[in-house]
Amino acid sequence: MRHDRRSYLNLMKHFSKKAILDADKNFRRDFVNCLSGYKSLNLIGTFNEETGETNLAPFSQVFHIGASPPLVGVLFRPPTGERHSLGNIVHNGDFTLNHVTESFYKEAHHCGARWPNSEFKATGLKEEYKDGFPAPYVAGSPLQVGCTMEEQVRLSVNNTVLIIANIEHVYVQENALGEDGFIDLQALGTVTVSGLDSYHLGQKLARLAYPKPDQPIRVISSDGDE
Amino acid sequence: MRHDRRSYLNLMKHFSKKAILDADKNFRRDFVNCLSGYKSLNLIGTFNEETGETNLAPFSQVFHIGASPPLVGVLFRPPTGERHSLGNIVHNGDFTLNHVTESFYKEAHHCGARWPNSEFKATGLKEEYKDGFPAPYVAGSPLQVGCTMEEQVRLSVNNTVLIIANIEHVYVQENALGEDGFIDLQALGTVTVSGLDSYHLGQKLARLAYPKPDQPIRVISSDGDE
Repeated sequence: MRHDRRSYLNLMKHFSKKAILDADKNFRRDFVNCLSGYKSLNLIGTFNEETGETNLAPFSQVFHIGASPPLVGVLFRPPTGERHSLGNIVHNGDFTLNHVTESFYKEAHHCGARWPNSEFKATGLKEEYKDGFPAPYVAGSPLQVGCTMEEQVRLSVNNTVLIIANIEHVYVQENALGEDGFIDLQALGTVTVSGLDSYHLGQKLARLAYPKPDQPIRVISSDGDE
Repeated sequence: MRHDRRSYLNLMKHFSKKAILDADKNFRRDFVNCLSGYKSLNLIGTFNEETGETNLAPFSQVFHIGASPPLVGVLFRPPTGERHSLGNIVHNGDFTLNHVTESFYKEAHHCGARWPNSEFKATGLKEEYKDGFPAPYVAGSPLQVGCTMEEQVRLSVNNTVLIIANIEHVYVQENALGEDGFIDLQALGTVTVSGLDSYHLGQKLARLAYPKPDQPIRVISSDGDE
């Protein structure tokens, strides 16, 4: 291990569980939201079957659940008050995931405000429909996924709701897709989020070959290769 | 919305669920693992209470579950064959999360190989113990979290296991912690992962103020500020 000079220059601050619980509510929310590290950022597109109104909301709690069959998970906060995205998904099952790029991350953030009507109309992001899928994609997003709900799991510990969904359609910019199935998120321009409100691009270190005990780690490709 | 020039120059490729299922197994695994976007990267430190042996494994499926009380979730693949980390956590409850930096991401990746003994010994990463917590932290990691299992949820859809854990201790480099609770992951040097094997640093775009319908999006701080 090569040591990072920073780790000697900077002291570590300790927070016990009690110190976190005793902290100001806003401090605690920001702090705990940062602990896991960088998070995925997706705009989730849904529609209300009764009113026909579309909905678009930024989510940082989308994660991989399985490849065979292709499944994705979305964790929703406890459904107190209005939760349009969750309500629409539970009601009619269909939703879209859309990667966010530098060119529209501010609009994506603005979708998190309490708009009375569709966030598409409010922010100027455009709806896109294709291959008969009923939920709206975000036009111009470089990676779009059409999903249908498979299962809803309520986590009794704090009433968050985990939606597990089948991946029905994927649209991805061809220039970012490798022959091995790898999708280059930097070629897509995908944005990542930390905490509640900090947005970042990725800066590649390297792709590393499958790790084996009897071999040193081998770099497949690094930043300089591209 | 300002349009990204890329989106006009590059065609979108469509994959139906059937096309994904019909693809080569390795292609499918890489492809589906990339769909959610950038993922958190943590080394999970555990120990076997019976043998005393420590274990260290890289995980990209760690996510925020709640702030009050502070809870974190870790999704484990179906427990077929040896799953040391999951077995240790379920058996004695304690584990650590450790952010990974550029200075040791290759060692972190190497922890994913099938080592006969402790990955600490194998890779040269150093164990650190403090405040009476029994599981090993990774010395030099700029953000370390001590956790105890609260609940184990088996997702029947594909037998993955969701571990929900209480956050008992947090150690964070002081220089990265803001007064508002925000932790600057770039100051920590935290690495993010995409797919199975691609490692990245974050490159800040901006922090954005809480979004409101009647106000344009306001930048709190951007890359140039720091």
